[in-house]
Amino acid sequence: MNIGVLGGGSWGTAIARLLSKKGHDVNFYVRNKEIVDEINIKGENSKYLPGVRLENIKATSDLFEAVKNSEVLVLGVPTNSIRSVLEEIKDYVKDQIIVNLAKGIEVDTLKRVSEISEEILPNNSFVSLSGPSHAEEVGKDIPTLVVVSSKDSNSAKKIQHTFSGEDFRVYTNHDLIGVEIGGALKNIIALAAGMSDGLGYGDNTKAALMTRGIYEMSKLGKALGADPYTFNGLAGIGDLIVTCTSMHSRNRRAGILMGEGLTSDEAAIKIGQVVEGVKTTKSAFELSNKYNVSMPITHKLYEVIYEGLDPRKAVSDLMKREYKEEMEEIFLENTKI
Amino acid sequence: MNIGVLGGGSWGTAIARLLSKKGHDVNFYVRNKEIVDEINIKGENSKYLPGVRLENIKATSDLFEAVKNSEVLVLGVPTNSIRSVLEEIKDYVKDQIIVNLAKGIEVDTLKRVSEISEEILPNNSFVSLSGPSHAEEVGKDIPTLVVVSSKDSNSAKKIQHTFSGEDFRVYTNHDLIGVEIGGALKNIIALAAGMSDGLGYGDNTKAALMTRGIYEMSKLGKALGADPYTFNGLAGIGDLIVTCTSMHSRNRRAGILMGEGLTSDEAAIKIGQVVEGVKTTKSAFELSNKYNVSMPITHKLYEVIYEGLDPRKAVSDLMKREYKEEMEEIFLENTKI
Repeated sequence: MNIGVLGGGSWGTAIARLLSKKGHDVNFYVRNKEIVDEINIKGENSKYLPGVRLENIKATSDLFEAVKNSEVLVLGVPTNSIRSVLEEIKDYVKDQIIVNLAKGIEVDTLKRVSEISEEILPNNSFVSLSGPSHAEEVGKDIPTLVVVSSKDSNSAKKIQHTFSGEDFRVYTNHDLIGVEIGGALKNIIALAAGMSDGLGYGDNTKAALMTRGIYEMSKLGKALGADPYTFNGLAGIGDLIVTCTSMHSRNRRAGILMGEGLTSDEAAIKIGQVVEGVKTTKSAFELSNKYNVSMPITHKLYEVIYEGLDPRKAVSDLMKREYKEEMEEIFLENTKI
Repeated sequence: MNIGVLGGGSWGTAIARLLSKKGHDVNFYVRNKEIVDEINIKGENSKYLPGVRLENIKATSDLFEAVKNSEVLVLGVPTNSIRSVLEEIKDYVKDQIIVNLAKGIEVDTLKRVSEISEEILPNNSFVSLSGPSHAEEVGKDIPTLVVVSSKDSNSAKKIQHTFSGEDFRVYTNHDLIGVEIGGALKNIIALAAGMSDGLGYGDNTKAALMTRGIYEMSKLGKALGADPYTFNGLAGIGDLIVTCTSMHSRNRRAGILMGEGLTSDEAAIKIGQVVEGVKTTKSAFELSNKYNVSMPITHKLYEVIYEGLDPRKAVSDLMKREYKEEMEEIFLENTKI
């Protein structure tokens, strides 16, 4: 199959390699010409996925070249660049299935990526790929499980078969909203978990933050129309676990730096790549106010990033809330059924 | 309040300390006389919780001494010793609330600890305490969140207030079955996750195993009468996360050793304390057959432990199952509602 992959970051590169290893014809659009040449001549993307051999991938800095003739178009660009990329390609696009790898919510519009795609490319099927999948490990064929989700189940199944391999197992999930929200919000909790690590707290503290984090993620997801069960899965806790516990995670590393006293801007500069969670915290903060969903961790993190609250004070505030039943809200809604 | 704590392992010791710091009168039963003397004279339990200062705790090797006059009795003994301990004390027990710290399923009877307690002490309220709580960290006042659950919500609330402190936040959860099953089954997945680490697989692989693990845990829980949402909480993924990612976890460490080629017996000897997950794997294997619940990870781990399957073959078998919808069973049941 002819597949265009757009975006030469670590995840786009790992997916381009995965697809070419499966025998697909991969046209790989990378804006930076030096990286294009390095991939075509040396078979490596040493800036974003060093040490991983790239074979039979045709890299190009010509966007049209990657889009034309493709049956599937993979978006490997950050959430807040997707609108401009889709605007740029929309006149070349035919009936390709769009597969999105980005995890975030557009800051200005509070839209999910599928909503952006539907707005600009209303006639193309859209599939979201998510789950615990560090590019660095997929690039080394370490066993990995992900989900794909789409409003069009045939497209989801087609992408499942197109991407699945011996070490890359793809599940389908019917709940597109949940899959997209899970992938986006987990970056917020990863920042918080990193902050806890940076402050010197323990494994107990971090596991508690992650658990309460997935709970508030599923509450917001439910308000937005997701199935709360999705947050129990690969695009929810699976991705949350890998993002909160691995040193591969940029969001976690940014959180650690913030716990150690840096601002979010200083941390982002030190990381050197996009830290999606910083913007997503703002989007989720606004969504939680709009839908009246209690999200204490997100709100405290918002105060840390945007209002200068001391991270230690944030954790201590979270610990001192009143005595509670664990699953109050969801439980109460359950009993209503 | 007068509280008896039975069992001088790491978790019993950390809880005895926590309660005495809150001003309760703690009578701490420890079978080993040397440990009793060390606690009373030197204020330390150097075998099980080294480096943690124990003050105002009266240790005793006289079981009756710890039980009499107590209003609350905390059980800090392994699951498969609880029956014999309760049989031993049942004639001294008055109307104490029983608080259980152990996480497991009795091997011969497949009973939860609450069921054992109800059988031997039918007139006593029973509360289960669970969640991500390594003793080593609670002993150092690292912020920790746990749940308590009971058929009697007043007892649960009483224990919530008795145990809660600045760095130890206690939620209540209405679902006793789910809380008990979550705590028990997570040790199986921790063995599997450790095995994946021991085999040299990555963070992606482990997160996937944990996610599919919590899924099969909640399926068995549901069959046994639990609310699947409980597995989303502190006694489910919270405890799973801490157990699968921390080096404090005996079950994870045993799994690592097994991944490196040791048998489960050899691993247990090297760990030197009870590895609950080995026995729980057998219990869960039998429960899954009895209730006809598909639990692929548990079954593969059973084959590794009890039938000599090669761990690498086990992981590769798990990766090669047919294409699937992620939440098939639960989703299908949902749509029925």
